[in-house]
Amino acid sequence: MADGIKNKVAIIGMGCTKFGERWEMGSEDLMIEAFKEVMEDAGIEKKDIQAAWYGSCFDEVNVGKAATPLSLALKLPFLPVTRVENFCATGSEALRGAAYAVASGAYDICLALGSEKLKDTGYGGLPEMSTAMGTKNRFIMPGLTAPGGFAMMATRYFSKYGISPEEGKKILARISIKSHKNGVKNPKAHLRREITEAQALNAPMIAWPLGLFDCCGVSDGAAAAIVCRADLAKNFRPDPVYIKALQIAISSGEEMMYTDWDGTYVQTATVCAERAYKEAGITKPREEINMMEVHDCFSITELVAMEDLQISERGKAGYDVMDGFFDIDGKIPCQPDGGLKCFGHPIGASGLRMMYEMYKQLQGKAGDRQINDPKIGLTHNMGGFPAMNLISVCIAGL
Amino acid sequence: MADGIKNKVAIIGMGCTKFGERWEMGSEDLMIEAFKEVMEDAGIEKKDIQAAWYGSCFDEVNVGKAATPLSLALKLPFLPVTRVENFCATGSEALRGAAYAVASGAYDICLALGSEKLKDTGYGGLPEMSTAMGTKNRFIMPGLTAPGGFAMMATRYFSKYGISPEEGKKILARISIKSHKNGVKNPKAHLRREITEAQALNAPMIAWPLGLFDCCGVSDGAAAAIVCRADLAKNFRPDPVYIKALQIAISSGEEMMYTDWDGTYVQTATVCAERAYKEAGITKPREEINMMEVHDCFSITELVAMEDLQISERGKAGYDVMDGFFDIDGKIPCQPDGGLKCFGHPIGASGLRMMYEMYKQLQGKAGDRQINDPKIGLTHNMGGFPAMNLISVCIAGL
Repeated sequence: MADGIKNKVAIIGMGCTKFGERWEMGSEDLMIEAFKEVMEDAGIEKKDIQAAWYGSCFDEVNVGKAATPLSLALKLPFLPVTRVENFCATGSEALRGAAYAVASGAYDICLALGSEKLKDTGYGGLPEMSTAMGTKNRFIMPGLTAPGGFAMMATRYFSKYGISPEEGKKILARISIKSHKNGVKNPKAHLRREITEAQALNAPMIAWPLGLFDCCGVSDGAAAAIVCRADLAKNFRPDPVYIKALQIAISSGEEMMYTDWDGTYVQTATVCAERAYKEAGITKPREEINMMEVHDCFSITELVAMEDLQISERGKAGYDVMDGFFDIDGKIPCQPDGGLKCFGHPIGASGLRMMYEMYKQLQGKAGDRQINDPKIGLTHNMGGFPAMNLISVCIAGL
Repeated sequence: MADGIKNKVAIIGMGCTKFGERWEMGSEDLMIEAFKEVMEDAGIEKKDIQAAWYGSCFDEVNVGKAATPLSLALKLPFLPVTRVENFCATGSEALRGAAYAVASGAYDICLALGSEKLKDTGYGGLPEMSTAMGTKNRFIMPGLTAPGGFAMMATRYFSKYGISPEEGKKILARISIKSHKNGVKNPKAHLRREITEAQALNAPMIAWPLGLFDCCGVSDGAAAAIVCRADLAKNFRPDPVYIKALQIAISSGEEMMYTDWDGTYVQTATVCAERAYKEAGITKPREEINMMEVHDCFSITELVAMEDLQISERGKAGYDVMDGFFDIDGKIPCQPDGGLKCFGHPIGASGLRMMYEMYKQLQGKAGDRQINDPKIGLTHNMGGFPAMNLISVCIAGL
């Protein structure tokens, strides 16, 4: 039966724009900026690319429907290009499409590129989730915003595990402080500054208990990867990064919304991680994984992800956070590039931005934020509200 | 180097809804209708499906962004589902995603499903192409509608090849008469009636020389396929259909818009077909192909497609049309199910609707519209205006 794509596909190049308020740049400009870096990094020419996967969530503020915008922006005539969209996991899906195509034998070398001009959506204005996920998506509670939904996760988490609001707020603050401390060393990060505990705790409230510094950046940006048949990868560079597992899982709603789901975990993430660990041959994730980029759209999301991914025990991730387990010099450094929190979150690009950092860290090329000799990295990219979501987990190593 | 997916993937089931004005049905209802048929046809259960690809173009009138709507509608918890969108070729892209995933070794059995509630878009109101392809897509001439764009193709084609407007209109009418004659035998067709030459020639003008009967239906509908590893296919049915080639190509604009392109051909289609013929090992398409479903959004589009696909010589397709070469009893029956013209065109579903007919014809199960023992079929699915488009060509056989 199906034996997976493990070790069939390598990443031989990555590129990522500066994330932030890129008002001066159009979608095409962002694509070109990421493309230039990925091509230089892979050391290939346009003619070497045989197909591409393009991730973009909000076509209405990018350059329109279909995959033609990529062909036009990058001037790649007659190239097969496919647009994928899976909300906040769109960038990971671009890589997944390219990876399957290479593993299938259809192509040797493919481009995956994700891009989003998120500032132009007015998304920072906190639309209802039902609107953000399509015009009045009928599966999302009317009136629910992203911060509102994740705030409920936080209050319920505190309640279930007997954490006082004061303790809880400090744990969440510690998560964001760590991400900003990492991201300040990252010239591409959107919100490149350190924050103090006092700043985090006294910040304007967005949706209680989530304050301003519990929420990720709303950013413009693009990121890209060149993937290649694993057996050809060393023709291009001495240090390709191999994909060990690439899985997605989607909630069908009913197993969470209409059952006894208490909002303190994301079952889709656990299912997806189990599949990825199986594909990668990982039996003890807490011991075997050396660095992570997880989907920290909100501080509480990162906390819960650590439990969903079987790194921390249920209800205990806060101890790991406070112990510095996820710090840059901890056991499993998490968000070494600053994460969604500090690096920013241009929706179609974020999954590939995570992979960019994993790739650089595994190659030992992460500069000032380099962690100590990682061998196995993991990215975790979530789309949608926890009750109706999709998760991508990618595991890679040198 | 890459050896393609030829003979690695089989279609073991297909489903297609009745196309038409399905005001009483939501997107979920259409998905369920197509899913029910495809599952019964494949003889599998939900638990056998390992991943899915979902094609939907206009998320704003369907059930929202991302691939979660499919999971929710069909109740497929934790299934990996990816949304693809490539304008009018969206349905073909769903099949391509599923096919690559199976060929890659990631999965044994996958679902591809495309769906569109097109009537709800008001798309029949002929928006500018620049709006239809995204909010003010900046690569399309402002003010240009789909009929307007293809009308220019027709006038230029007549002029280039010395065809009088009267002769030209008769050729185009003959194309639509043939499609309606086929489609009247198809209980799932939207516009299920025969038309006469007088009706076609005297129809209300949409964009000269294209009258009402030169334009395809604006329809709601869904279609689906179950694809499977080729070596397992006969475990499910004695007559699986094998994918011999599956290619896409995208215009990057500049090679057509800014050069000496005269509007009478679609170079992307020729490039894509050449790739598909090479993958399938076809050297004489006019001799080897036994049936076709091509993208006849307008009658002129079908005429030009026959030349782009190397079936008719440049400027000569009209002779083949008038000779009955593409009739149901001709050398290469084209649009045996009625085509976009008569069957209708729910954007996300159309590519899979074409494959549905090819599959049924190759199996000898097309009922009243069965053609004589076809061995090799071809589908040709175009997205976008010819100057900025994408083409999918799929070749399949028993």
